[in-house]
Amino acid sequence: MAPGTLSVTTSCPMQLVDITSLVGKVLGSQDVSEGVCYLFNPHTTAGLTINEGADPAVKDDIIAGLVKTVPLHLAYKHLEGNSPAHIMASLMGASLTVFITNKTLMLGTWQKIFFCEFDGPRNRNVHWRIIPAHL
Amino acid sequence: MAPGTLSVTTSCPMQLVDITSLVGKVLGSQDVSEGVCYLFNPHTTAGLTINEGADPAVKDDIIAGLVKTVPLHLAYKHLEGNSPAHIMASLMGASLTVFITNKTLMLGTWQKIFFCEFDGPRNRNVHWRIIPAHL
Amino acid sequence: MAPGTLSVTTSCPMQLVDITSLVGKVLGSQDVSEGVCYLFNPHTTAGLTINEGADPAVKDDIIAGLVKTVPLHLAYKHLEGNSPAHIMASLMGASLTVFITNKTLMLGTWQKIFFCEFDGPRNRNVHWRIIPAHL
Repeated sequence: MAPGTLSVTTSCPMQLVDITSLVGKVLGSQDVSEGVCYLFNPHTTAGLTINEGADPAVKDDIIAGLVKTVPLHLAYKHLEGNSPAHIMASLMGASLTVFITNKTLMLGTWQKIFFCEFDGPRNRNVHWRIIPAHL
Repeated sequence: MAPGTLSVTTSCPMQLVDITSLVGKVLGSQDVSEGVCYLFNPHTTAGLTINEGADPAVKDDIIAGLVKTVPLHLAYKHLEGNSPAHIMASLMGASLTVFITNKTLMLGTWQKIFFCEFDGPRNRNVHWRIIPAHL
Repeated sequence: MAPGTLSVTTSCPMQLVDITSLVGKVLGSQDVSEGVCYLFNPHTTAGLTINEGADPAVKDDIIAGLVKTVPLHLAYKHLEGNSPAHIMASLMGASLTVFITNKTLMLGTWQKIFFCEFDGPRNRNVHWRIIPAHL
């Protein structure tokens, strides 16, 4: 089970960053033709999700929808003012499981892997581990 | 690590389809008594979730709740008009991890596995992989 | 792949309970220095999430945000009256994947693992399985 960490630099307060090619490069450096790739986001105001990458408007719409879904100005107790970012982080989730086949990510036609920044811009990390199908 | 794909046909624009017995049939065809089963949805307007299956009203209430939670008529940029479906897909998530014990799914008393259709009706797939506990 | 179950007792209708140290005790009892820990919640009105544990206000804000996000008084069909709890359960998710390194959980600086109670108080369980990196 190979381990590693990707670096992601975000440029906006809220942003979905397509990290599919970064994860693909990791696979290219590993000798695993069939298996499972786990991704883990170690930040509490960010998350990971898989969604459409063909039309870049979708990632913007996901942010727009979350901003309207999660209350931004509630009487939150956490004094840093970023409680909506913490809530969005939990809604997206901290980990992903993606299958590997033929040394590539087994994603759907329109799917891309996104790092979800909710309190940026920041330098962020995504940890990964790969487990081969045949141990 | 055995791989495969399930087919799911949905009949409504938005619908939770209980796929527990389909996943159970997969387990029955595999010789894995203890392990982990991963499920992966390759679509960007659908998801996977685990929730109550005993009362079918719950799956309808989850849809009703999501429809009221996610804004349906925002000024979305994605021109296909299904941005709410994309957002719901990310809220539910694309992958699930379920334990296997005694060659069966280790679900709670009321739990069932649901394919979440948010832009149907369509023919959909769910990929699965099973990793045995004792390799 | 070692299996087991943690017990969690909740004391409120809705509450995030930090179970990080309970999971850490599990790791201490296992001889796995590198690997992956899966957590699975078998309940349909509860979930699992990873978020900030340093300031206890964050977990309260997540509950407060979810209460404002999910409609509490819709014309739900499920007669038990806890449909919002079922929806929140699906929003948080039933399973988590956490990496293990040096026999400890590989969490971010501020991250803790939380059991999410949405229909308490109750006695709850969390199943776990650990897969070592070197099998």
